[in-house]
Amino acid sequence: MDQISTTSFSVNGITYTPQQQPIVVICMDGSADEYYNAALTRDKMPCLKAMIRSGYRGLVRGALPSFTNVNNTSIVTGLPPSAHGICGNFFYDEKNDMEVMMNSAEYLRAGTILAAAAASGRKVAVVTAKEKLRDILSHQLKGIAFSAERASDTKLSVHGIEQAEQTVGLNTPEIYSADASLFVLRAGVALIEKGMADFLYLSLTDYMQHTYAPEAPEALDFYAAIDTELGRLLSLGARIGATPDHGMNPKITAGGKPNVLYVEDLLEAQFGSGFRVICPITDPYVKHHGALGSYVVIHIEDKSIIQEVIAFLHTIPGITEVYNKEEAVRHLEQPSDRTGDVVVLSGRNVVVGRKPRYHDLNAIEGALRSHGGRYEEMISMILSHPLNNEYLLRSAGDPRNFQIFDFLINGTK
Amino acid sequence: MDQISTTSFSVNGITYTPQQQPIVVICMDGSADEYYNAALTRDKMPCLKAMIRSGYRGLVRGALPSFTNVNNTSIVTGLPPSAHGICGNFFYDEKNDMEVMMNSAEYLRAGTILAAAAASGRKVAVVTAKEKLRDILSHQLKGIAFSAERASDTKLSVHGIEQAEQTVGLNTPEIYSADASLFVLRAGVALIEKGMADFLYLSLTDYMQHTYAPEAPEALDFYAAIDTELGRLLSLGARIGATPDHGMNPKITAGGKPNVLYVEDLLEAQFGSGFRVICPITDPYVKHHGALGSYVVIHIEDKSIIQEVIAFLHTIPGITEVYNKEEAVRHLEQPSDRTGDVVVLSGRNVVVGRKPRYHDLNAIEGALRSHGGRYEEMISMILSHPLNNEYLLRSAGDPRNFQIFDFLINGTK
Repeated sequence: MDQISTTSFSVNGITYTPQQQPIVVICMDGSADEYYNAALTRDKMPCLKAMIRSGYRGLVRGALPSFTNVNNTSIVTGLPPSAHGICGNFFYDEKNDMEVMMNSAEYLRAGTILAAAAASGRKVAVVTAKEKLRDILSHQLKGIAFSAERASDTKLSVHGIEQAEQTVGLNTPEIYSADASLFVLRAGVALIEKGMADFLYLSLTDYMQHTYAPEAPEALDFYAAIDTELGRLLSLGARIGATPDHGMNPKITAGGKPNVLYVEDLLEAQFGSGFRVICPITDPYVKHHGALGSYVVIHIEDKSIIQEVIAFLHTIPGITEVYNKEEAVRHLEQPSDRTGDVVVLSGRNVVVGRKPRYHDLNAIEGALRSHGGRYEEMISMILSHPLNNEYLLRSAGDPRNFQIFDFLINGTK
Repeated sequence: MDQISTTSFSVNGITYTPQQQPIVVICMDGSADEYYNAALTRDKMPCLKAMIRSGYRGLVRGALPSFTNVNNTSIVTGLPPSAHGICGNFFYDEKNDMEVMMNSAEYLRAGTILAAAAASGRKVAVVTAKEKLRDILSHQLKGIAFSAERASDTKLSVHGIEQAEQTVGLNTPEIYSADASLFVLRAGVALIEKGMADFLYLSLTDYMQHTYAPEAPEALDFYAAIDTELGRLLSLGARIGATPDHGMNPKITAGGKPNVLYVEDLLEAQFGSGFRVICPITDPYVKHHGALGSYVVIHIEDKSIIQEVIAFLHTIPGITEVYNKEEAVRHLEQPSDRTGDVVVLSGRNVVVGRKPRYHDLNAIEGALRSHGGRYEEMISMILSHPLNNEYLLRSAGDPRNFQIFDFLINGTK
């Protein structure tokens, strides 16, 4: 095996000095702490348990909105959305009257830790369950980057790897499955085993968490299978950090139906027309959530009524926080040119939408479970190695999930 | 042993039909979920683990401010502070220009589940670590009610029990100790063993959590000792529900010092005089927190500047939420006559105070750990028995810590 590079590299104001062993950061998509707890209490995650006992587990604050691409981008840049620019799947460009999809690196305003690690001499690999994340995660990266969803399609020139299925030893999984995430972890194991990577970012998908509660047998089996892969990574000598992008909560009424506030309808009924509600969770993977999350952005034609709209929204049961643009920039770390006049967050069991016609509730499998708001903000950071004194003190501040590369590389003994 | 009454009783709109076995609700003061997780992962709480596996564990939302007497009162009434009136240790009565302490039942606006259970024929016992809670918890109660802090002092006419120390078999503990809480649990065990109670509310104190982080050996030992008492209660056939009043977070700067925003000073520097900041965490137990929490209430002489003050407070780093009175009533469930013109919540690692002279930082033992705000709102509810289908659905909504009597009695199989 080649020597693993320990050359320091700097990106976005932080210098990373990686250890001479495989560095693996895992984005445990949608892993609200309840999932770990349910599995640990039932002895389904012995490797995670050992990791926590010899390493570290603590709560950290994710980026808002608590969505997948926002937090994946934060994790690989080490920055909040205000700095990296990716604040959802969509934003509305008022000047050009266009809804703009942000799933491409063209909207990224910062370099990634992954590209910088590769430039410093590490063999970097990114494996993501969902293809939609690949473009951002592989931005300027000289290394391997492919998705489980399109593993059958990899080309050396594009993905840095030929015949990924053969390398992993598995066929391309169905995206709506536990296997979509397990494939990612197994790919990580295979890439380390074969000496193809020593600095990895493995990003899972939250289909299972959108579909099953923490105590469901399907969820417990899923986490047990994750644990097996964690064990393999540990036995390969990896230094592992795991953090979710966001938590997950049921968003249902007492009758078990989706608990939705259609914000554009509410506003039109009160003020007439002139509103555009953006649901930045909207993406092509509708089976997960029907484009319903706990965070929406509102654009208002008549700017003179913003304060009145905010006061009205504060009176709607289920809406928990309402901010004007300045406050959203400050409290929610949003890029001011990609947010709206008003930002709304909803309660633990409430999602906010646009109008019924924009949301296909029939696409949702099982009861609606979703995220995006404050009650999916707090998640855990788990590290395979204990923190040094400096980072132990930092962990007692306001640590963030997107500091995980820093904590893992610079903060562990 | 006498027959245990199963007569239904109703209070504050809910009918309770208790089982023919000891009902025990424990307020696990300051037990942020991290404390359970640290102890469970290290195999320190086998009884709690068994309880969770055969029963229920889920996150619930506490009442705000996330303080002890607010949430204890909520738990024993089944109501939010807007309905029971106790929204802190203090409020400012603007009309009479008086700061009023709310630690007495005279300020309670609702009956308690405990008094109603006793009236229905249950043998009720309340044991609280801190004497300050006894008056509210024992309001109109025909039964036993005493504090660990004053266990040496009990009188039949006042406390429903003579010589409590002898009954428990322990001397009155030091209030700043693990024993203050363990005494409460051992008292519960003794009262059931001796047939003196079959419906118990046991309220611990958070001195240990204010002082030690979850992984500290002292904290792990404390939870192991709690676990022993849980095991005794279970072996006595008790049906147990456990929930904290609030979580707990370090509130320190990067240098390890208390991370305090002195709000009255900030406001005076910006607007001049005319402000009174109330810190409703203030109580006689200063070693815990130096009267510093993550929630303050502001009274403003000149009501015309309220909006301006709110806008200013929104710009202060560390302040996370700012509400006017109406919004505080709605979003934070506050009684409008006992809150102020503006309510401020601070971040996970930030406390808000009045002016330095009102806060004795020297009284704090170790690093400042405190609560009161949004980041101490989410806590767990643990039940010894599994939920029935109706309450399982409710648990997927927005369950509250103060519904624990309802969940335990009406919601478990």
